[in-house]
Amino acid sequence: MSDKPFESDFTQAEIDALYKTIFNRRDVRGQFTSEPVSDEVLSRLLYAAHHAPSVGFMQPWNFMVIRSDEVKSRVHDAFEAANEEARQMFEGERRELYSSLKLQGILDAPVNICITCDRERVKGPVLGRTHIKTMDLFSTVCAVQNLWLAARAEGIGMGWVSIVEQDRLRQALAIPDDIVPIAYLCVGHVSHFNDEPELQKKGWRSRLPLADLVYFDQWQQGPGEDEGLLEQLQKNQGFPEGFIKLP
Amino acid sequence: MSDKPFESDFTQAEIDALYKTIFNRRDVRGQFTSEPVSDEVLSRLLYAAHHAPSVGFMQPWNFMVIRSDEVKSRVHDAFEAANEEARQMFEGERRELYSSLKLQGILDAPVNICITCDRERVKGPVLGRTHIKTMDLFSTVCAVQNLWLAARAEGIGMGWVSIVEQDRLRQALAIPDDIVPIAYLCVGHVSHFNDEPELQKKGWRSRLPLADLVYFDQWQQGPGEDEGLLEQLQKNQGFPEGFIKLP
Repeated sequence: MSDKPFESDFTQAEIDALYKTIFNRRDVRGQFTSEPVSDEVLSRLLYAAHHAPSVGFMQPWNFMVIRSDEVKSRVHDAFEAANEEARQMFEGERRELYSSLKLQGILDAPVNICITCDRERVKGPVLGRTHIKTMDLFSTVCAVQNLWLAARAEGIGMGWVSIVEQDRLRQALAIPDDIVPIAYLCVGHVSHFNDEPELQKKGWRSRLPLADLVYFDQWQQGPGEDEGLLEQLQKNQGFPEGFIKLP
Repeated sequence: MSDKPFESDFTQAEIDALYKTIFNRRDVRGQFTSEPVSDEVLSRLLYAAHHAPSVGFMQPWNFMVIRSDEVKSRVHDAFEAANEEARQMFEGERRELYSSLKLQGILDAPVNICITCDRERVKGPVLGRTHIKTMDLFSTVCAVQNLWLAARAEGIGMGWVSIVEQDRLRQALAIPDDIVPIAYLCVGHVSHFNDEPELQKKGWRSRLPLADLVYFDQWQQGPGEDEGLLEQLQKNQGFPEGFIKLP
């Protein structure tokens, strides 16, 4: 433990840029254009993903870049089958609303990317995964989020398709049984980004007040004398909206 | 599908700032200072986490802010027990190297944050989680990564402590059995950030060449006629290092 002061290596504009990216990131399903994603941009997105944190520096991920219409169409079939099952799970008005939502852009997006996790990337015990076995899956999710944010800053839309049987996805992409497909992503240029999450816009579910989700020291415990953070959270409630620059 | 061109809403400097954050983010264990993290900064970090993507807009997370020395010390005991077990799993030189690594900053960091996942946040079926049940856990991991990146830009260090039994963590924080603690994080100002991952620096494991991890259309398949991306990945191999501004 040292008390040497740290000199900030980010300007305020750089800090703002990071928050701007985070608050404007959207799950894109419907606004893809046919413009191809250049190899330069795609390469940067993959580097962003590759620099995610990983347990024991395991880097358990692979990145499958899918441009073949035939392969996309197989994945789309798998989505359609799962989505019909999913639709049946909802009732009445919710089912109607569910059916009206566009939940993927597999065929529209010029590039699809499947990010997988190789749980045997490292032979023997993995530093940091000795007690929580899912840490490698979680590392791979961090790579997804890095890619998502990089895409947003580059003006590229991305959507995560999760309504699909993992085994059908494996079949469509010839992924072996011991590899876990973590995320199937649709990636491409867009006509626009929505200014709020689509599920909120369409009335499916609203954003929860952050202050209600924060506990102190113990589960469900309030701040005690430590009221400052709670006040700040309430005061900042409009904070992210300041970063929404889009019409 | 629309072909209206999208006008980029990020400047080049903003895009660079995002990559700078991603490439300079580190898992911090040893460089925490005693300077407190202000409620203003902490509030922004939590907003960044809260604006992660979540399946069905479920927002399944809670954020437990831990400042109590007593609670930290209970978590530290749980780490110590697990770490001793972990140490025994490695052999010879690896065990020696493992023992020499500082793997947590629980007591050093002024704030610890436990991010949890409430799998029952939404009653009934969850849009997008109908077929991959772990999507809510993955959403919570995205919140961790958002917080991590925001912290880095703000000059705040963060480390993820994964060498701990989840049940002991639950006990230490009075977390109910049906809530999943996803990440236990040490957060605080730092004396400096390392210019490369600590495990690489200490010779535990090196970064893999990204080009080896990319497949095309099918598992383990090369690019075929689509060589451009692979060339770009090889050309960009030094790309992230351009963003390392620290001595």
